[in-house]
Amino acid sequence: MNDDRKAFFADPGSLDLSEYVVLDYFFESTLEPTEAAAHLCQEQSTAQWKRVGVDEDMRPLHAARVIDLVVERTPDRPCIPFQLESWGTIWACRVKIAYPIRNIGASIPNLMTAACGEGAYFSLGIHAIKLHDIIFPAGYLEQFEGPKFGVAGLRELTGVYDRPLFFGVIKPNIGLAPEPFRDIAYQSWLGGLDIAKDDELIFDTAWSPFEKRTRLLGQARRDAEQKTGKKCCYLANITDEVDRLIELHDIGVKNGANMLMINAMCTGLSAARMVRKHTEVPLVAHFDCVAPISKSPYYGIHSRVITKLQRLAGFDAIIFAGMGARMKNYRSAVLDDVRACGDSLCVAHSDSSGRSAPCPVKSALPVPAGSQWAGSLQPLYEDIGSIDFAIVPGRAVFDHPGGPKAGAISLQQGWDAIKAGISLAEYARGHQELEASIRQNT
Amino acid sequence: MNDDRKAFFADPGSLDLSEYVVLDYFFESTLEPTEAAAHLCQEQSTAQWKRVGVDEDMRPLHAARVIDLVVERTPDRPCIPFQLESWGTIWACRVKIAYPIRNIGASIPNLMTAACGEGAYFSLGIHAIKLHDIIFPAGYLEQFEGPKFGVAGLRELTGVYDRPLFFGVIKPNIGLAPEPFRDIAYQSWLGGLDIAKDDELIFDTAWSPFEKRTRLLGQARRDAEQKTGKKCCYLANITDEVDRLIELHDIGVKNGANMLMINAMCTGLSAARMVRKHTEVPLVAHFDCVAPISKSPYYGIHSRVITKLQRLAGFDAIIFAGMGARMKNYRSAVLDDVRACGDSLCVAHSDSSGRSAPCPVKSALPVPAGSQWAGSLQPLYEDIGSIDFAIVPGRAVFDHPGGPKAGAISLQQGWDAIKAGISLAEYARGHQELEASIRQNT
Repeated sequence: MNDDRKAFFADPGSLDLSEYVVLDYFFESTLEPTEAAAHLCQEQSTAQWKRVGVDEDMRPLHAARVIDLVVERTPDRPCIPFQLESWGTIWACRVKIAYPIRNIGASIPNLMTAACGEGAYFSLGIHAIKLHDIIFPAGYLEQFEGPKFGVAGLRELTGVYDRPLFFGVIKPNIGLAPEPFRDIAYQSWLGGLDIAKDDELIFDTAWSPFEKRTRLLGQARRDAEQKTGKKCCYLANITDEVDRLIELHDIGVKNGANMLMINAMCTGLSAARMVRKHTEVPLVAHFDCVAPISKSPYYGIHSRVITKLQRLAGFDAIIFAGMGARMKNYRSAVLDDVRACGDSLCVAHSDSSGRSAPCPVKSALPVPAGSQWAGSLQPLYEDIGSIDFAIVPGRAVFDHPGGPKAGAISLQQGWDAIKAGISLAEYARGHQELEASIRQNT
Repeated sequence: MNDDRKAFFADPGSLDLSEYVVLDYFFESTLEPTEAAAHLCQEQSTAQWKRVGVDEDMRPLHAARVIDLVVERTPDRPCIPFQLESWGTIWACRVKIAYPIRNIGASIPNLMTAACGEGAYFSLGIHAIKLHDIIFPAGYLEQFEGPKFGVAGLRELTGVYDRPLFFGVIKPNIGLAPEPFRDIAYQSWLGGLDIAKDDELIFDTAWSPFEKRTRLLGQARRDAEQKTGKKCCYLANITDEVDRLIELHDIGVKNGANMLMINAMCTGLSAARMVRKHTEVPLVAHFDCVAPISKSPYYGIHSRVITKLQRLAGFDAIIFAGMGARMKNYRSAVLDDVRACGDSLCVAHSDSSGRSAPCPVKSALPVPAGSQWAGSLQPLYEDIGSIDFAIVPGRAVFDHPGGPKAGAISLQQGWDAIKAGISLAEYARGHQELEASIRQNT
């Protein structure tokens, strides 16, 4: 290896890893892998490390460095059906790159530029690249606020300690005036729904002004608490232009919305962090614009990275694409996102110590989404192996043949069946809300 | 077609298209296309259009509607190597969907949620989908500020009316202190560079504080203007957390940075729009985090859509992935982005009237990027067919063997050769800066 290339490699033992974020990429190249990986580091950091005619070198302090490189395969043809018209040998690799924090600081846009910028996706000889993981030193994480409430705070707010949380998407939403919208949300709270939520597609509009909607639902939420003796949450969607987010936060909170949602990748993660610094209530992320970045197995950014960044930005709960025919997700991908919410951000996803290793950033509640109902609880509970998650049905609550109250009751009955160790069908006898839900969903 | 499905279709002649944004998708489905397209509209808008037990219908006012659907092929196998494990008939389609503006308002995050949200990417029976184009009615565009300066304003600012603009990325950058950084920028202005720019990876850091960097370069820019009699621009990168953007804008402008850059998809488009409402100088977008969204031909969002949204957010110049081995771009994709900067946003990209149709949003200057030098001018000029573009070399100016002044001179000589109708090699005789550049780059 020539000296110029060597400058972009390091023995991890020789680096002070508290000063580096570690980026874990899959890439496929038509260049010999050490050369391709060196180019990748160079493009991401000190593309030109000296002035003309000056004897200097910026690389010792500022270069990104390969700390691990594994050639996984030498496939016969490219993994993606584009970009390459002809090829000789192809190498499919995994590379871990230590990226100097001194280049970027504790700033999400700067970090994203380094990890997902021109340098990463336009490097000589690399035709396919996907950022699979990102690992942070504890000292770096301490510079971020992270979730204000986290899982423990959400349990305190909802008063639910012994089961998964039940979100429900108030439906219909688009086109429905605030008064009837309030009425159906109120019914769901009477049925025991923990968190009635705005759809991600309902904004501050003429037919449902945010001020009025949150005022009516804030009052209804308090009324339901009075009536049921149970804590109730209204999750209002504040997604809008960035310069309106703080205003909408303040209106919502004043009016009684006690959780707020942001379609994070549409407003931007940094805007969410700005709200986090200001917020008095838990923040929930919705997954719009995540699929186009993350769905290709060989290009883009793994959804676990997006989930980790959302947690870093300060979301207390993260809604992401879950199981089911409509979602077309691999089970493993859903569980990757679940773990990204709870595992330590200081260790790699492949490191089984992730669950127990300390992490200065609180855990976020994972909320796998997609056409759920009472019957979605059992497989998720088994897969996740913990009650620290939520489901977020829409139709199963708000299009339940018995109405939203019955729909909400059916969720609790679904969980009761699990706790009783009885099949859903068996438990449904004598529990008509669950019985109707089974008929609706199977 | 059953009535429920019919509600998501419309004859475009029967709709008031001034009330709709038109979304143009490629999709591939395992469901019969009209059914798949109806589901797509439903997921994107009125997923549930009535309350239980109430005779109502939100769809007439609020449903997204298919206004055009073409089955392009029925391929033997899926276009993407994921998501489907088995299949029968597959349909590859183009669909135009009219999306009601009343659902979203003139808000970029709301628009992105509708066009690129859960609804678009998680619709029953559709395993591959890419947003190819977006078309706006004039009245909608009038609610956006758009570029403050546009191409005409940039020409006025630079005083360059008769050729493409020359940006240059000041290199080295990462790790270089503000004083030497200033010195090399100053040299490039003496050589006639129009716009010396911060790299997208240089931020407000301890080793190059933004305040000091912009103060030194702002002064050097004015000095160079004095010395050369030519207008000079310093494009400073203000990319950082959203709640710092206005502060950095103000510091930069006060210190003499007369153009500002934002890594738009890393800070978020809406944050850029916030800066646009405030800015006194032209804004330039850099293309970090665009490739992971746009590169797959069968999934995600076409780069022309990202370019259009950046223009809508108010960028006066848009840097995107251009030609060359490192960029691995199709020529047509580069020209798509060029046209998205200049064509009317009111007509489809496939409509040749785009160049002449009126558009309430100013044109942005297209800046195709990637390892450029003087020799990049001719093919781009021929492809674009206009002088309204810019190049943005780094090494060709700042690693030129004769230094940054000679590097900048070589660009002008490259253009002079074109104007003289002489080959670069021939013109290089007697023009030593160009001669050295040819040796460096070929």
